[in-house]
Amino acid sequence: MTRFVCRDCGLAFDVMVPRWRCDCGGLLDLEFSPRLDPAEVAGRPATLWRYREALPVPEGAELTLGEGFTPMLEVDLGGRNVLVKQEQLFPTGSYKDRGAAVMMAMAAHIGVTDVVEDSSGNAGCAVAAFAAKAGIRCRIFVPADNSPGKLGQIELYGAELNPVPGTREDTAAACMAAAEDRYYASHVYNPFFFHGTKTFAFEVVEQLGWRAPDTVVLPAGNGTLLLGAHIGFTELKAMGLIDRVPKLVAVQSARCAPLCAAFEAGAATVAQASSEPTLAEGIAIALPMRGEQMLRAVRDTGGVCLAVSEEAILAAFRDMGRKGFCIEPTSAAVAAGAAEYVRTAPRDEVVVTMFTGHGLKVGDKLHKLVSD
Amino acid sequence: MTRFVCRDCGLAFDVMVPRWRCDCGGLLDLEFSPRLDPAEVAGRPATLWRYREALPVPEGAELTLGEGFTPMLEVDLGGRNVLVKQEQLFPTGSYKDRGAAVMMAMAAHIGVTDVVEDSSGNAGCAVAAFAAKAGIRCRIFVPADNSPGKLGQIELYGAELNPVPGTREDTAAACMAAAEDRYYASHVYNPFFFHGTKTFAFEVVEQLGWRAPDTVVLPAGNGTLLLGAHIGFTELKAMGLIDRVPKLVAVQSARCAPLCAAFEAGAATVAQASSEPTLAEGIAIALPMRGEQMLRAVRDTGGVCLAVSEEAILAAFRDMGRKGFCIEPTSAAVAAGAAEYVRTAPRDEVVVTMFTGHGLKVGDKLHKLVSD
Repeated sequence: MTRFVCRDCGLAFDVMVPRWRCDCGGLLDLEFSPRLDPAEVAGRPATLWRYREALPVPEGAELTLGEGFTPMLEVDLGGRNVLVKQEQLFPTGSYKDRGAAVMMAMAAHIGVTDVVEDSSGNAGCAVAAFAAKAGIRCRIFVPADNSPGKLGQIELYGAELNPVPGTREDTAAACMAAAEDRYYASHVYNPFFFHGTKTFAFEVVEQLGWRAPDTVVLPAGNGTLLLGAHIGFTELKAMGLIDRVPKLVAVQSARCAPLCAAFEAGAATVAQASSEPTLAEGIAIALPMRGEQMLRAVRDTGGVCLAVSEEAILAAFRDMGRKGFCIEPTSAAVAAGAAEYVRTAPRDEVVVTMFTGHGLKVGDKLHKLVSD
Repeated sequence: MTRFVCRDCGLAFDVMVPRWRCDCGGLLDLEFSPRLDPAEVAGRPATLWRYREALPVPEGAELTLGEGFTPMLEVDLGGRNVLVKQEQLFPTGSYKDRGAAVMMAMAAHIGVTDVVEDSSGNAGCAVAAFAAKAGIRCRIFVPADNSPGKLGQIELYGAELNPVPGTREDTAAACMAAAEDRYYASHVYNPFFFHGTKTFAFEVVEQLGWRAPDTVVLPAGNGTLLLGAHIGFTELKAMGLIDRVPKLVAVQSARCAPLCAAFEAGAATVAQASSEPTLAEGIAIALPMRGEQMLRAVRDTGGVCLAVSEEAILAAFRDMGRKGFCIEPTSAAVAAGAAEYVRTAPRDEVVVTMFTGHGLKVGDKLHKLVSD
């Protein structure tokens, strides 16, 4: 049976009743028994729903814009061929569609008619798109100083924008207040989101012929993919489909690197980092709510945390462009991290990484980024 | 054996020698014997290269950014569920990747090191990306009054921009002059491009379980997809994989509708249309070079030409957004055409259409398009 379980106090809750945190304030995980039969999956359409028995959404409740099973291509990174999942090719232009598809399918299944979320970036777009597909009203809380141009994609999907004066934290607080009587479609708190992003691990393993890679290099902002991938690989190991969970390497911008700081210090928790503007906006999270969980995922798998410089991000962005890949700058940070990782990694390691979002997300800035 | 054949004088040429038109000035087609075995194709990766025996590129010469086998989803258009190929999900954000992948693979195969093309839009992006992937130098001729912001994606791929003062025709003329001693990677003249876009037909038929739809509604600018689809369906019929070529319905903007005018008038050729600015920029071609061929494809299949208004384009754009689809305005013209077509079509017809390009192509305009 699928249940919410509090990470702090262990209390369990029915998933048919909307909830985004425990009564004690603790973060929720999902208790769920996946099933995955490679032979059964083989002939199905190339979307993430091919793993439907491993997803905590009842059969028939699937919600799709055609997302998932992204191509995995060899790309020269740091002088070596690394396998790169093309996650920029999702319908809304980022891997966040993995989480939003599964979370909003479940929301629709339990009869939700209104959702709130706080993200002016890729997560907001993904939630808005799948809310539109499900016919669910969507309200996105954004800092009031966001430019309208940046929010056009969210508006296009028919979501209502709710500008909040003040800091990013004020926006989150306003959204949480609204979430008292509305479904909180959060890419940070809602565990269904992570059971969407976990399909990244399933696809990597299937595309490698049902083998685990040695190392997976991932972005680390709020950890939606890092934690999702950790769940996915762990489930695959528990089902006996792979023999080990790959090393998870977490990449942050050196200008906002709370996880790296905690990792280096050998700390058990993540403290708020000082933060400067960075090209890798999408992973610039000074205090990730699930930081402790992220830290544990990296350590338990024998991975490392890497912080990359602005120079390395811009160089990777331009290098990927000249190789034919149009990716957002945040994605270039991960590419730079992967390049750095393979420079000292054992030659025989199978290393997988991914592009986070499409370069067209910042289409009006491409000229400046290339020519400055 | 694969050969270029002139549509006017019938002269044939070796495809190993670069050529974009006949010595008589006539347009070239490709003479080629495709092979396609559904059983063989079934287990292959979900890219257009799964049909490699039906593509005029030798085995081993494939060039890929992960393009093709786009999802085909049911979408409510004009009050009816129409099957819509999600061609906006291609690597560069448009279906032009089909043509560019095949054309540039062939160019690389015959040892081309430099290409020229004239398109500041989706075709230019696609050619630049696959040139980058192939390590081929790429020069794109664009009207000098193009804003740099619009060309950022082309620059990102490392292509050299060649601004030409004057009209769109002046740009084409400059490119043709340069093509005297460089490979002309043209989405209008180069027949390999159309043998890339033909894979659209293969995918539709495979995704329908190796059955032909009754009708396919397509954009009609230069006809790169209309003619490609016609080649594809015709080849499938010749191979005995479908029993008829579906009706091809060509959609144009009412503000630039040369094909519609010729179709209505019962003319055999297409005359230059008067043209006003339209939201459907991507199909606003006042004098399509392959107009006669396009007209014949529509007539031979029992199709029609439809011209859609600006109001219908904008309404379709917004409607698709509210359904979760982020598409470029040109694409909304095709959606509007499909909606118009099904309103009077027999209820039992299987109708397929497509989204041409991603809405993020005009990301900075989305806010205005939604809210005005």
